[in-house]
Amino acid sequence: MAEKKRSDGMKPGNIFSKIPDLVKDEIFETLLKTDHLELERIISSGQATPPGEWYEQPIDEWVILLKGSAGLLFEGNEEIMVLHPGDYIHILAHQRHRVEWTDGEQKTV
Amino acid sequence: MAEKKRSDGMKPGNIFSKIPDLVKDEIFETLLKTDHLELERIISSGQATPPGEWYEQPIDEWVILLKGSAGLLFEGNEEIMVLHPGDYIHILAHQRHRVEWTDGEQKTV
Repeated sequence: MAEKKRSDGMKPGNIFSKIPDLVKDEIFETLLKTDHLELERIISSGQATPPGEWYEQPIDEWVILLKGSAGLLFEGNEEIMVLHPGDYIHILAHQRHRVEWTDGEQKTV
Repeated sequence: MAEKKRSDGMKPGNIFSKIPDLVKDEIFETLLKTDHLELERIISSGQATPPGEWYEQPIDEWVILLKGSAGLLFEGNEEIMVLHPGDYIHILAHQRHRVEWTDGEQKTV
């Protein structure tokens, strides 16, 4: 899609664009932010939550995996949930979870 | 992804799943709804906004095209904006727009 500005407020882009090849860290980019919502693109390159650590967020998170793959573990579950392209999940606030792994062969969006 | 229930509140699914083959109408499915947000999957099969009509919505819309393609026209622009997979756009409330076309060869999500 052309990058030129079209109208006020429209911010066109492509979710798969501008993914750097050589990056060690995960990349968090805010695409939209309102009083009630933050929309983020997250690009991972094999990262995982450090051993023994859990994410516990004060807000609900709805996540969709569009490229690559990832394994999530929710506290109290024994089985890792594997996300493939198109898979989404609604993670409730305070639901403790870990990213066990992300794809080591390609970027995960 | 397995369809079995895993924990309270989690509603896993795949954005590309359960797309009917033979459908004449567009399919709107709510994936998540809160006081401040409605998240919808829209599946189109060649539909367009009827000639001369415009959409004008009271709320902002952020849309990402994940499969297929679509042509959008915004009032005051001459050029149709073509969306391909991964393309997203933020449509402000009351910004009049039309869907000029959606892919006639495959489903558009």
